Amino acid sequence: MNQTPMGNRYHIAIFGKRNAGKSTLMNGLTKQEISVVSDVAGTTTDPVYKSMELLPVGPVVFIDTAGFDDIGELGALRIKKTRQVLRKTDFALVVLDAQEEPDRELFDFLKEIRLRSLPCLAVINKCDAAKPSAGLIKLLESEQISYITGSAYRPDFIGRIKEAVIQAASTVKEEPPLLEGVVRPGDLALLVTPIDSAAPKGRMILPQQQTIRAILDADAMMAVTKENRLKETLDSLAVKPSIVITDSQAFRQVSAQTPEDILLTSFSILFARQKGELKPMVKGALAADRLKAGDKVLIVEGCTHHRQSDDIGTVKIPRWLREKAGDGLEFAWASGTGFPEDLTGYAMIIHCGACMLNQREMRYRMQTAREQNVPMTNYGMLIAHVMGILPRALKPFREEIEDEIQEEE
Amino acid sequence: MNQTPMGNRYHIAIFGKRNAGKSTLMNGLTKQEISVVSDVAGTTTDPVYKSMELLPVGPVVFIDTAGFDDIGELGALRIKKTRQVLRKTDFALVVLDAQEEPDRELFDFLKEIRLRSLPCLAVINKCDAAKPSAGLIKLLESEQISYITGSAYRPDFIGRIKEAVIQAASTVKEEPPLLEGVVRPGDLALLVTPIDSAAPKGRMILPQQQTIRAILDADAMMAVTKENRLKETLDSLAVKPSIVITDSQAFRQVSAQTPEDILLTSFSILFARQKGELKPMVKGALAADRLKAGDKVLIVEGCTHHRQSDDIGTVKIPRWLREKAGDGLEFAWASGTGFPEDLTGYAMIIHCGACMLNQREMRYRMQTAREQNVPMTNYGMLIAHVMGILPRALKPFREEIEDEIQEEE
Repeated sequence: MNQTPMGNRYHIAIFGKRNAGKSTLMNGLTKQEISVVSDVAGTTTDPVYKSMELLPVGPVVFIDTAGFDDIGELGALRIKKTRQVLRKTDFALVVLDAQEEPDRELFDFLKEIRLRSLPCLAVINKCDAAKPSAGLIKLLESEQISYITGSAYRPDFIGRIKEAVIQAASTVKEEPPLLEGVVRPGDLALLVTPIDSAAPKGRMILPQQQTIRAILDADAMMAVTKENRLKETLDSLAVKPSIVITDSQAFRQVSAQTPEDILLTSFSILFARQKGELKPMVKGALAADRLKAGDKVLIVEGCTHHRQSDDIGTVKIPRWLREKAGDGLEFAWASGTGFPEDLTGYAMIIHCGACMLNQREMRYRMQTAREQNVPMTNYGMLIAHVMGILPRALKPFREEIEDEIQEEE
Repeated sequence: MNQTPMGNRYHIAIFGKRNAGKSTLMNGLTKQEISVVSDVAGTTTDPVYKSMELLPVGPVVFIDTAGFDDIGELGALRIKKTRQVLRKTDFALVVLDAQEEPDRELFDFLKEIRLRSLPCLAVINKCDAAKPSAGLIKLLESEQISYITGSAYRPDFIGRIKEAVIQAASTVKEEPPLLEGVVRPGDLALLVTPIDSAAPKGRMILPQQQTIRAILDADAMMAVTKENRLKETLDSLAVKPSIVITDSQAFRQVSAQTPEDILLTSFSILFARQKGELKPMVKGALAADRLKAGDKVLIVEGCTHHRQSDDIGTVKIPRWLREKAGDGLEFAWASGTGFPEDLTGYAMIIHCGACMLNQREMRYRMQTAREQNVPMTNYGMLIAHVMGILPRALKPFREEIEDEIQEEE
């Protein structure tokens, strides 16, 4: 049951040149485990992902990448994909051939690891055939990268690498609980979860599911309803819920029906807050007020999903923004693992809730936007803003983002 | 977002001899779709699964199998796995080489398809190189199997095959809604969802998730709580819930705390009922009363998961049954796709909730047990029975299974 969302998995990526032994290492790390639960095969250009439980770390995903010395046109594409992996990597395993001499490519790659302060282990492979080259050892030592020597075909070597990964992973700071300071033990929360046509058959979408779980983990209770039964649900409760959490798309209606003395926020605001992005996202949403004819807006989704006729990213958001800023607005879209490196020319970026992206990847995206001075927000924040209820939706976190709320009011 | 559970997907399996073009067909059917969401690579012996949305059918999984003419020891193992796939197949695509002459293997395979009344299409491949053999056409016509001729490398041929699959799938009777006749529009249900250590991090286990969704789909409302807050949750409701649905493991406590005038059942009873298995499963549970020293009990799980120290299948159930029938009981376990063909010697079979198996597979298993006169039940039903609350848990479905309840009372 491979049910842990990608965004919650610790990402361990395997880098190195072609034939350094990356795939052998990948197989060694994942195959011997009875707990390998899925095996997502790459196409010719895509990295290979294997999700598993790595105890005691928990859910991880190993990523096998194309060699960063790949050649030709296809090679260039593969290298680009490998660099995209780097953005979401929590731990890098750099596989080196014992006989390899350091060159510009390796040097540049290690430099990039260092610039990102990425936890890293160099795996010097094929040491049964030859001693590690002196140049390699010298480079690793000057870059202060720990290394380990052996052969990726030997289980004991695999075991030592796993130990190193486990040690690195266990020092990682966990994200704070989703509802920290918002829902306390014994509280009663009320969730409003519309079922729209994009929801997978027979299931709850990820953010709703994660919130339900977070409430139970907080030792609290909840009522759950679609938006059409909100009033009835409120009436059926003998105690007032401490907070109402709604899907952003039902914001206006839910806000109107929820008494003013009950706190109200949205799933996407909670998730942005958990990821430490609340403040910049609020600031980004306010940028919608400054949009004018000729401005170009970039809309980004972290996964590819079926477009619905009332699709939020391609239909609703453009409509709302045009209502605000007129018909002269232009829109561009990006989805999946793609995020433009050059954001020149965009007046603002509106990102989906990013349930399929991990925190490193989202930080990279926000960082890229910040460096290029392009305001960036997410769907939920933008919707709350265009519906005029951002101040109310942010009230539960007032102290955390004092300045932005004042600017808004 | 590959979130539709396997058990809810329409299973389309591709069968045929080695080199008939099965994988080419698989790729053709899945690759051209932007909606291919996962790609589970097989090992040397396992079939390959590709999940995707096949509109307008919905979520499907294509399964590429090993040739049923595979040879050698490994070949025999692969054929066995292929036959296991047959048990859960909703639609069979039989790929044939145009130049192939019918032989015993093909004849036997088609006979099996017919015995199972399995919807089926023969795909005569490689027709760009040769006309279909007369023997092949004759066999298909005598078996009344529709066929289609072309080349699996041609998109138009793939398109025609897809149409045929869509047409077959759209005539399939859907399972009744999970809560049919149990939860009505405007009802308030109460779910008790303990979070045990086996639950995936940050998520809800599948049956709970599906039940939450089913309640929303029924246009009803719900309260959700862990077992420790049940009393508080009941107190916080101004109206009485029409039904309490609990995880089987908390049955005794929940039954004690839920007023007698509120209906009570479990997630597993609901799912067994939806699959039309309630009656035989109840009967199977009652077989526990007849267990005695020397009897052998088979415990089956549909997936492999981490064993916990208080694991239900390996620890709790054996303990409960020994409390009933003494230390002389023997236990055997099966998990994953395995289910013994020969059940001789087992006094009863206890199956997990089977959220990862589809209905055809479960029917096959129950059928096998029935044919060999071995009573079969599931975890939830057994737990309710050993805790003495089966009559109460079945009360919501009293009319559907009158005889069994009377026998129990």
